Amino acid sequence: MTTMKAMVYYGENDIRFEERPIPQIINPDDAVIRVTKTTICGTDLGIWKGKNPEIQEHAKTLTGQFNGRILGHEGIGIVEEVGSAVKKFKKGNRVIISCISHCGICENCQKQLYSHCQNGGGWIMGYMIDGAHAEYVRTPFADTSLYLLPEGLNEDVAVFLSDVLPTSHEIGVRYGNVKPGDSIAIIGTGPIGMGCVLTSQFYSPSVIIAVDTDDHRLALAKELGATHTINSAQEDAIQRILDITEGRGVDCAIEAVGAEPTWNICQNVVKEGGHLANVGVHGKSVNFEINKLWIKNLTITTGLVNANTTDMLLKTCCSGKLPMEKLASHHFKFAEFEKAYDVFKHAADQKAMKVIIDLDQ
Amino acid sequence: MTTMKAMVYYGENDIRFEERPIPQIINPDDAVIRVTKTTICGTDLGIWKGKNPEIQEHAKTLTGQFNGRILGHEGIGIVEEVGSAVKKFKKGNRVIISCISHCGICENCQKQLYSHCQNGGGWIMGYMIDGAHAEYVRTPFADTSLYLLPEGLNEDVAVFLSDVLPTSHEIGVRYGNVKPGDSIAIIGTGPIGMGCVLTSQFYSPSVIIAVDTDDHRLALAKELGATHTINSAQEDAIQRILDITEGRGVDCAIEAVGAEPTWNICQNVVKEGGHLANVGVHGKSVNFEINKLWIKNLTITTGLVNANTTDMLLKTCCSGKLPMEKLASHHFKFAEFEKAYDVFKHAADQKAMKVIIDLDQ
Amino acid sequence: MTTMKAMVYYGENDIRFEERPIPQIINPDDAVIRVTKTTICGTDLGIWKGKNPEIQEHAKTLTGQFNGRILGHEGIGIVEEVGSAVKKFKKGNRVIISCISHCGICENCQKQLYSHCQNGGGWIMGYMIDGAHAEYVRTPFADTSLYLLPEGLNEDVAVFLSDVLPTSHEIGVRYGNVKPGDSIAIIGTGPIGMGCVLTSQFYSPSVIIAVDTDDHRLALAKELGATHTINSAQEDAIQRILDITEGRGVDCAIEAVGAEPTWNICQNVVKEGGHLANVGVHGKSVNFEINKLWIKNLTITTGLVNANTTDMLLKTCCSGKLPMEKLASHHFKFAEFEKAYDVFKHAADQKAMKVIIDLDQ
Amino acid sequence: MTTMKAMVYYGENDIRFEERPIPQIINPDDAVIRVTKTTICGTDLGIWKGKNPEIQEHAKTLTGQFNGRILGHEGIGIVEEVGSAVKKFKKGNRVIISCISHCGICENCQKQLYSHCQNGGGWIMGYMIDGAHAEYVRTPFADTSLYLLPEGLNEDVAVFLSDVLPTSHEIGVRYGNVKPGDSIAIIGTGPIGMGCVLTSQFYSPSVIIAVDTDDHRLALAKELGATHTINSAQEDAIQRILDITEGRGVDCAIEAVGAEPTWNICQNVVKEGGHLANVGVHGKSVNFEINKLWIKNLTITTGLVNANTTDMLLKTCCSGKLPMEKLASHHFKFAEFEKAYDVFKHAADQKAMKVIIDLDQ
Repeated sequence: MTTMKAMVYYGENDIRFEERPIPQIINPDDAVIRVTKTTICGTDLGIWKGKNPEIQEHAKTLTGQFNGRILGHEGIGIVEEVGSAVKKFKKGNRVIISCISHCGICENCQKQLYSHCQNGGGWIMGYMIDGAHAEYVRTPFADTSLYLLPEGLNEDVAVFLSDVLPTSHEIGVRYGNVKPGDSIAIIGTGPIGMGCVLTSQFYSPSVIIAVDTDDHRLALAKELGATHTINSAQEDAIQRILDITEGRGVDCAIEAVGAEPTWNICQNVVKEGGHLANVGVHGKSVNFEINKLWIKNLTITTGLVNANTTDMLLKTCCSGKLPMEKLASHHFKFAEFEKAYDVFKHAADQKAMKVIIDLDQ
Repeated sequence: MTTMKAMVYYGENDIRFEERPIPQIINPDDAVIRVTKTTICGTDLGIWKGKNPEIQEHAKTLTGQFNGRILGHEGIGIVEEVGSAVKKFKKGNRVIISCISHCGICENCQKQLYSHCQNGGGWIMGYMIDGAHAEYVRTPFADTSLYLLPEGLNEDVAVFLSDVLPTSHEIGVRYGNVKPGDSIAIIGTGPIGMGCVLTSQFYSPSVIIAVDTDDHRLALAKELGATHTINSAQEDAIQRILDITEGRGVDCAIEAVGAEPTWNICQNVVKEGGHLANVGVHGKSVNFEINKLWIKNLTITTGLVNANTTDMLLKTCCSGKLPMEKLASHHFKFAEFEKAYDVFKHAADQKAMKVIIDLDQ
Repeated sequence: MTTMKAMVYYGENDIRFEERPIPQIINPDDAVIRVTKTTICGTDLGIWKGKNPEIQEHAKTLTGQFNGRILGHEGIGIVEEVGSAVKKFKKGNRVIISCISHCGICENCQKQLYSHCQNGGGWIMGYMIDGAHAEYVRTPFADTSLYLLPEGLNEDVAVFLSDVLPTSHEIGVRYGNVKPGDSIAIIGTGPIGMGCVLTSQFYSPSVIIAVDTDDHRLALAKELGATHTINSAQEDAIQRILDITEGRGVDCAIEAVGAEPTWNICQNVVKEGGHLANVGVHGKSVNFEINKLWIKNLTITTGLVNANTTDMLLKTCCSGKLPMEKLASHHFKFAEFEKAYDVFKHAADQKAMKVIIDLDQ
Repeated sequence: MTTMKAMVYYGENDIRFEERPIPQIINPDDAVIRVTKTTICGTDLGIWKGKNPEIQEHAKTLTGQFNGRILGHEGIGIVEEVGSAVKKFKKGNRVIISCISHCGICENCQKQLYSHCQNGGGWIMGYMIDGAHAEYVRTPFADTSLYLLPEGLNEDVAVFLSDVLPTSHEIGVRYGNVKPGDSIAIIGTGPIGMGCVLTSQFYSPSVIIAVDTDDHRLALAKELGATHTINSAQEDAIQRILDITEGRGVDCAIEAVGAEPTWNICQNVVKEGGHLANVGVHGKSVNFEINKLWIKNLTITTGLVNANTTDMLLKTCCSGKLPMEKLASHHFKFAEFEKAYDVFKHAADQKAMKVIIDLDQ
């Protein structure tokens, strides 16, 4: 058997579930993983919609042609083969695949800024190299980019450790400096915002305000731990957040959408000395009301996940105290991959959060 | 003697050096200080130019009228009288007057966020209450707002501990997380930017790039410790900073002007994982290129000085290792106060940095 | 009415429940509180047993005589009267009394090191001045030493905010740097150790090992959140902790007894790079195996509570997620105060943890 | 040419300067370096004196025999050959050799705790594997254990970046939390203590007290930046430190000897809330006066260098602001290696600090 099924991006609005060669070890620190479960990220949808033409350009620059890119950067699986320099893993290990690959030796990796690895790491899987929406995937820098999947961890939760939980935790909750007793507002309750609702609870804030325009999502946010919810299509979110916090504003606002209106909510509700953690991917610049905010001793952060807390999250998720598995709204068989994409594309109508594709079914 | 001379603001472009009553103790935690040296801040100029009409409004709201406001929030002096609740100071003590008053008991004060004191503290002197451009000044919350002036400290440097050095240090250097070996860019070398050139050296950055449009100031920046200078009127500052840092950008950019062009330099020269510390007072919002910067793991900070490192600076300045006193470009007698304002207003032409007014002369 | 009942220490093994004058305002920043609930601390027992002869000495130095000291530094109550300088509180406010008083203006207070207040604050109540085991108590520095009791907070939990929870949280959990996913060992499950079991959960460690010699306490520790318990009288605690952690040791060991055997457990179970937080009050020096530990990159901390996280705890406790109220094992009426002391003195036999004395009954 | 000269340890008091085979690449991540300059560490002397019999035991366990161990873990050189997996270096690169090797992929390496690398890294060179007191040395984990030597850096200073400066900086100064304005005491002014005198100045403490029994060393400490010196053989060091600090004690005490008397000075001079950073290698346990210190809110740290600030130090040392090169008291030709050992062994008599051996001479 030398081929496999994979979900391949060919250009704007053109993805195909088709036969591709099984990937092989290229570099000595590579591993090839047989994928057993994967999920779809908003970024995959963005590629599908044509937001990342650099994928084609990059491929053409390197090889003069573009033969499609297998999507996907999340999943768990079983190590099929390892390169000669791989030390931590061997054939048969059950592993979590991190969305971030990193060399571990460059200046940024030495600072744990793995998303900005200067030796070809960072977010590359399903983007600059073929990804995990396939039966097999090649992972570079295997020793630093894979995690042993512990016995007893819910496999859906394990899939969420590839990207959504580390992103929420690192760029939302930790950059946002969430502390016991804090009041926080999470603007947007898609998978990342919902991941913030969950992982913020590792630090025991006392007020968690979830804001969205979708009542179904808000209901889930409440179920997962939000203390207050606001439908910003129906209410003035800024005013409501100020009301809830007795006019003070929140200690931390997390932007989990990537748009000016949600940015605006954030910049208007953070109290003096507070944090604004931007997790959303923005397509346009925003207006920063620094004329009002220069005086407020704010800390505003941005970032791509470094996956440097994956190990911490793994240990914490194993304790099972928070219902992480409820992020999974839908489950599909591998043969239904196109349907999974379709459902996730119409997430609001489908009441979809994270969709899990099970390759063993 | 019941009156004194003072520099009084009456409205836009209307300040007068005139006779006023000597201030008295009002609250039990007040002190009255006989001012011996003071200096003028860019904020004083701003008030003079009419940027703070809230001064009049606030006075009228409280008392129905506005009889002028004595300017100034910096200086040293001798304690003349203390209220009944003052514990740390007594008549005759030589003291530094902090620009920030704070109650010490509110939630923000408990977090050392003194600039946002919730009991009427913060920056109020020479703004919401009469200030230090006078022979005497009343300081509220004397126990937390005054510092004993140590023997042997240069008195000009002591005056700079009221505002310019704490502001530079806290909002520029510490919020900017300057560390040994860092490369930093300081955009604007007025008194605050120059204070950043100086106080950043407490943390041993290896590259200090000063940017301004005034060659005279850049020459002083170099004398005070900048390793590189860029005249942004003559060169492309962004490109030059990238060149100096081998294309990497700086670990920390400090905005010390308060305008969109200087903000723009900053947001284009910070390396991934770096810090942008805004110290400048902005009159307008700015365009934040979050579409480019969401991915860069930046930390952007704003703030008004808390004066919570004044004691640390006092100890460090006493060591005399850095030529803090060179911030003083001009010295005036008290009788020349109007001339001092005029020189500071035309700082560029006058090659003025900080101007010291000596009331004992 | 000018007298009240109080629990008074006269010397080793001599405490008396007797009539005393109701305290009056002495300094302008004092308040007098009518105590409604209080509890007994191990320190109170220590005084009773004669461990603090400095109490008599101090009183004699000041006044030439010692007329007894009212014990107690924990409780809630209602403000009866405030001094002229008190700003935050007024007669009728329901308040929590902190065990730590602080001036807010000295160098240590400016660093939030309130337990080492240099102006007569720190732990003084029920020690250097009369305490809260009485119908009324005078609290100095009222503005910084009292907390408004929020509606809806369980009153027993409010009493625990005076001392046991801040001590556990600050000196055990925060000094011990407990983080999500950590493994921690808490040696000793008296009230402080049990407070560590509870407050450590604000930071989501995945392994919480409680060690004691009392099975009843261990059972309660498990109920309150410990994941593992070890009876060190029956098992080799060091070996068991290493076994539980796969030979690695714990990220954080908390000494909550104050004796060499428990210190020894701690210094033998912390993994490289880990923390040892000593909370116990020691009467003797200990042997520090620095010959083995110099190489392990450990952080060892000691300390008396600063009560600088009381506000944070107050907000978090209001959320009611952790069963803080279960620390209260016994409730007594005010008239039963001597019985309460007796039960607490024989805590093991009585299966006592914290005993609550309700003055309104 | 297949052999080289090297300084080889055979057992207690038995080291020989003799001919040995030139090392070869063993693992794909190895490099072989032609050493151009090296220096001797106190640890090398300790091995010579027989303090590390584990060297023989380890070798015998692995191979059944012990054929001597080449000493040395410091130096600079030129890359002679690299293994197939080495990415950052190639033949001809001028490099600094770190005393710490690390895999970069284990849990401890992910925490930057490189000294406790779980894959055979840590301090191994000149200890568990042959070292740098030779014409050639094999360095495992070359990508993470070598640093490009920048043009313009003094080569003696570069040699100090292998161990003495990172150890002083990380385990003394950073673990000791040295900040601007701090008062610090450095107990012992051998190479490590002297390195603390130097690298502490990156953080601008205002008082640096050096303590030793050797007036020559104290004079050098003063020349390198100490503000006060104490000869503890002639004066009561504890009392003098308290006097200098007006009875308060120091913010940070650094133990740079490894003995109970110096530990005792440290534990008696740290002020409440301060730091005690132990850098010394201790052969015996010490008495920890926790009965006095439990209440003082101290932070006590221990550790072996991680070399995770080498890059930071490299950048800072290039600025040349501090006279790091003055740590070198003696220079020897390679042929004089035995003499260098002899001089360093009798450091006090010889007024020796660091001795540099130049292999190109």
